Amino acid sequence: MNQLFEQLQPYLDKSIAYDAALTLLNWDIETLAPKTAISNTSKIIGLLSMESYHTLVNPEVKDLITRLSVEQEQKNLTEIQRVIVRKIKKDSDTMDKIPAKEYQDYSELVASSSSIWAKAKESNRFEDFAKTLEKLINYEKKFAQYCKKENETIYDYLLDKYEEGMNTAKLDIFFDKIRSVIVPLLKKIVEKNKVIDKSYNSKSYDIETQKKFCRFLAEYIGFDFNRGVMAESAHPFTTHLHNKDVRITNHYIENNLESAIFSVIHEGGHAIYEMQIADDISLTPVGTGTSMGFHESQSRLFENHFGRNKMFWIPLFDKLKETYKEQLNELSLDDFILAINKVEPSFIRTEADELTYPLHIMIRYELEKQIFSGELKIDELADAWDKKYEEYLGITPPTRTLGILQDVHWSCGMFGYFPSYALGSAISAQIYSDMEKKFPIETYLKESNLAPIHDYLKENFHKYGATKTTNELLIAATNEDLNVDYYITYLTKKYTELYNLDENLK
Amino acid sequence: MNQLFEQLQPYLDKSIAYDAALTLLNWDIETLAPKTAISNTSKIIGLLSMESYHTLVNPEVKDLITRLSVEQEQKNLTEIQRVIVRKIKKDSDTMDKIPAKEYQDYSELVASSSSIWAKAKESNRFEDFAKTLEKLINYEKKFAQYCKKENETIYDYLLDKYEEGMNTAKLDIFFDKIRSVIVPLLKKIVEKNKVIDKSYNSKSYDIETQKKFCRFLAEYIGFDFNRGVMAESAHPFTTHLHNKDVRITNHYIENNLESAIFSVIHEGGHAIYEMQIADDISLTPVGTGTSMGFHESQSRLFENHFGRNKMFWIPLFDKLKETYKEQLNELSLDDFILAINKVEPSFIRTEADELTYPLHIMIRYELEKQIFSGELKIDELADAWDKKYEEYLGITPPTRTLGILQDVHWSCGMFGYFPSYALGSAISAQIYSDMEKKFPIETYLKESNLAPIHDYLKENFHKYGATKTTNELLIAATNEDLNVDYYITYLTKKYTELYNLDENLK
Repeated sequence: MNQLFEQLQPYLDKSIAYDAALTLLNWDIETLAPKTAISNTSKIIGLLSMESYHTLVNPEVKDLITRLSVEQEQKNLTEIQRVIVRKIKKDSDTMDKIPAKEYQDYSELVASSSSIWAKAKESNRFEDFAKTLEKLINYEKKFAQYCKKENETIYDYLLDKYEEGMNTAKLDIFFDKIRSVIVPLLKKIVEKNKVIDKSYNSKSYDIETQKKFCRFLAEYIGFDFNRGVMAESAHPFTTHLHNKDVRITNHYIENNLESAIFSVIHEGGHAIYEMQIADDISLTPVGTGTSMGFHESQSRLFENHFGRNKMFWIPLFDKLKETYKEQLNELSLDDFILAINKVEPSFIRTEADELTYPLHIMIRYELEKQIFSGELKIDELADAWDKKYEEYLGITPPTRTLGILQDVHWSCGMFGYFPSYALGSAISAQIYSDMEKKFPIETYLKESNLAPIHDYLKENFHKYGATKTTNELLIAATNEDLNVDYYITYLTKKYTELYNLDENLK
Repeated sequence: MNQLFEQLQPYLDKSIAYDAALTLLNWDIETLAPKTAISNTSKIIGLLSMESYHTLVNPEVKDLITRLSVEQEQKNLTEIQRVIVRKIKKDSDTMDKIPAKEYQDYSELVASSSSIWAKAKESNRFEDFAKTLEKLINYEKKFAQYCKKENETIYDYLLDKYEEGMNTAKLDIFFDKIRSVIVPLLKKIVEKNKVIDKSYNSKSYDIETQKKFCRFLAEYIGFDFNRGVMAESAHPFTTHLHNKDVRITNHYIENNLESAIFSVIHEGGHAIYEMQIADDISLTPVGTGTSMGFHESQSRLFENHFGRNKMFWIPLFDKLKETYKEQLNELSLDDFILAINKVEPSFIRTEADELTYPLHIMIRYELEKQIFSGELKIDELADAWDKKYEEYLGITPPTRTLGILQDVHWSCGMFGYFPSYALGSAISAQIYSDMEKKFPIETYLKESNLAPIHDYLKENFHKYGATKTTNELLIAATNEDLNVDYYITYLTKKYTELYNLDENLK
C-alpha cells in the first residue's frame, strides 16, 4: 500500500468507528432509549461528534492530504483511495476557510434552533422563529462567501454541497418542466373531479398485524434481516453502521393502513442500497450512498415505481386482503391501485401524493433562491410561501404550522437540501426507464422475481457507494446525464391513464 | 475548580463518551444487531476500545495525575476529585509496570481465548483449552509480579484487583465458615430427603405472557422504565450508559417459569443500584457501582432476600396465579415458597440454588489459590475440580463440559474474580440484617411498600457510586466491616426452617 496513505489509514479507521458509534447512539435515542436519558446522552453525543469531526479535520491529516493530492502521489493510489483523498480534501478545505470561532458560534446556534422552531410550529407563530432563521441564513451566506468559487452564486454553492455538480442552471430547467407540465396536469385532474374511494384506508387496522405485514413486505422487497434491523420511531428513517448492519424504522397508525406500508417500502429502498454496497468499501468514508438525491432515488424507486404499481401488487393483493379480511372484503385490486395513487393537493409535503410532491419542492426551491439572492426578506417569507401554494396547488395554508413552519430542515441549517428530494424522484424515473429497456421489469414484479432487479441496481449503482457521483453513475448506466424528461413523461403517462384524461379526446 | 483538575476534565469527558458508546455497541450486539453484523462491528468496537484505553493511559494524563497526587494539590480537590485521581493513578501505575509489547500480546491472546474455550466446552475436551489456559495463567503471574506489593502473594494481588482490600487471609476465614457450616447443613438436607414438588415450574408458559409478567415485576421492585430499558438476550445481564439510562435483559424459556422471574429480579437489583447513583457523579469515572462484589450484593438482595421471601410474594402470588390460571391452579403460596427455595446439589454454578451456590464458588477459590501458589498443575486441574464437587456437593461431574469447562471467566483472563460472587451474597445478608434492625422490612415487603427500602439503599450505598469502597460503605452503614456471620446465620436459619431440620430435636 502507498506509504502516505498507510499513514492516513488510522485516522480513517477512527473516523469510521466514531461515526458508527454516533449512528448507533442516534438510532437508539429515536427507537429505544428511555425518556429521561436524552440530556446525559446528548452530552455524550456532543463529545463524540467533536472527536469525530477532529479526526479528519486536523493539521496532521491536512498535511497528509496535501501530500497525497499532488499528481505524483495520486498515481500511486487506487481509484478508491483517490476518491477518499478528494472527499477529505473538500471537507478540510471548507473548514480551513471558515474561522473556527464563527463555526463554533454557528454550531451552537444550530444546536438550539430546532427546539425554537418546534415551539414556534406548535404555537403557529412564525415571528418566534424568524430571527433565528435570519441568523442561520446569515451564517450560510457568510460561510458560502468564504468557500464558494469566484463566479458561483451562494445558492449554487449550497446546492453543490448536497448534490455534487448541481446548480440553479440545471434545476431551473428541471423545475421549469415541472411547472409547465405538472401544474396544468394537476389542474386537469382537479377539474375532472374523479371519484376515488379511499375510505378503506381509515378503517381500524390492528397495530400488531400491521407490524407483521410490514415485516413480510420488507423481506419481500429484499430487506435482508440477517444484515438488518427494523424498529419503531416517531418518524420512519433508515440508518446504517456498515453494509452488514442496516436499520429501518417504521411507525404504525391504527386508522391509516397505507402509512406504514409505503413507509416500509420507501425505507426498504434506502436500506437495500446500503446493504448492496461492496464489502471492500463498507468501512471507509466512501462506503455509503453517493448523495442524498441518489439515496432518495432508491427509496422512491421502491415506493413509487414498484410499490404503487399494479404489477407489484398482483402477487401480493390476496395476501393483503387475507391479512385484513374484514376491512378489505369489498376492495378490488384496481380500486386499491387507484386509491394508493389518488391525487389531492394538500399542505404537508411529507404526506403529498406522487404527483403533487415535486410542486412542494419547487415552492421551497423558488423561495430559497430568492432568499439567497436577497430578493426576499425574512418577514415576507411566510406570505410568499402561502401565495405559491395558492398558485401551484390551488390551496392556501390556513396556518403557519401547515405552511412555512412545517419542515425541520431550515432549523438544522439545511438550505439547498430540499431539491434533492425532487432530484431523487427524477433519477428514479430515469433508472426505471432504463430497466424497462433492459429487461421485462413489469413481468418480474408480477412474478415476484425481484432478484434481477436487485442485481441490476447492485451492479450499476449500489456496489459503488460514494466512489462515483450521481452523474457518473447515471451516465455509465443509462448513457446520459440526469434528464428530467423521464420523470415528466412517467408522471404524465401514469396520471393520464389513472384519471382517464384522454377520454375527452376519444 | 482546581486548575490542574480542569486540565484533566476533557480526558475524563472523552473517556466517559467512549465508554458509553462501547456499552451501547455491546448491548446492541447482544440484543438487537443482525447476525452478520458481528465481524464489522467487532472492528469498530476494537478501535473504540483502544481509543478509550489511551484516553486515560497516556503521558499527558500521567503527568497531570502525578501532579494532582502531591499533597499540596490534594488539599485543593473535592472528595470526589480525589477519588477520581486515585482511581486513574492505580490504573496508570499498573500499566506503567507492564511492558507494552507484553500487554499487547496478552490482549491478543485474551481476544482469541473465549472461542477456544467455547469449542473445548462444546466438544467436552479440556485438553483443547489447557494450553491456552496455561498461557493466560502465566501472563497473570508475570503481570502480578510486575505490579504486586513486595510481601503480597500473586493471588492476593489478583483478588484486590476485583475487590479493593480483599485477600486470602479474609477469604480463608470466609470460606472456612462456609465449609464448616454449609457443607454439613447441605448433608443434613440431602439426608432428610424432603419431598418438594417443583413440577409446576416445567409446565408450559406462554413467552409473551412471561414477558408481560416480568415487565410488571421489574416495575414492582422499582425498575424505572423512564430511565431504563428491558430487552432479551441469550444470557440476562445489566448495563448502563449513565444513571438515567440503565438496561437489563432477560431470557424466556417456555418450560421454566422461575428462570425469567428470578433473572428479572436479580438484574433489577443491579439496575436499581445504577439508577440511584447521584446525578453529580453519574458522568464521571466513579459514577458506577463500587465493585463487582458489591454490585452482586444488590442483585442478590433483590433476588434472594426479597424475591425468595414469602413476605415478598404475599401481595404478588394472586397476580401470579391469575396470570397462569391453568398451570398454577393447585399451587399454594407455601408450596411455591418451598419450591423456589428447593436445595439440590447440581453441577452448574449459574443454576445452583441459594444454599449450594457458595460451595461452587469455594471450589473455584480453592483451585485458584492452588494454581497461583504453584501447588496445582494445569493437567491436574480438571480432576481436582471433580474431586472437590464430590467432597462438597456429593456429586461428580460426568463430563468436562459440566465440570471445569462450564465458566467463561478464565478464558477472559479473569482470575480472582469468582470470590466476588460469594462476597456479594455475604454482603447482601449483612445489609438485610441491618435493614431488619432499622425498620420492619418484612412488613414493608408484605405491604408492597418498597419506597423506604429504596431510600435506605440509596442513602447508605447507591448514591455514592464508586466514591467509597465496599468496606467504607459497610462500616458507615452497618458499623462493621464485612462479616460473614450474617450470611451463615441467614442461610442456617432459613434452611433449617424450610426443611424442618429442628424437628428431630423437638
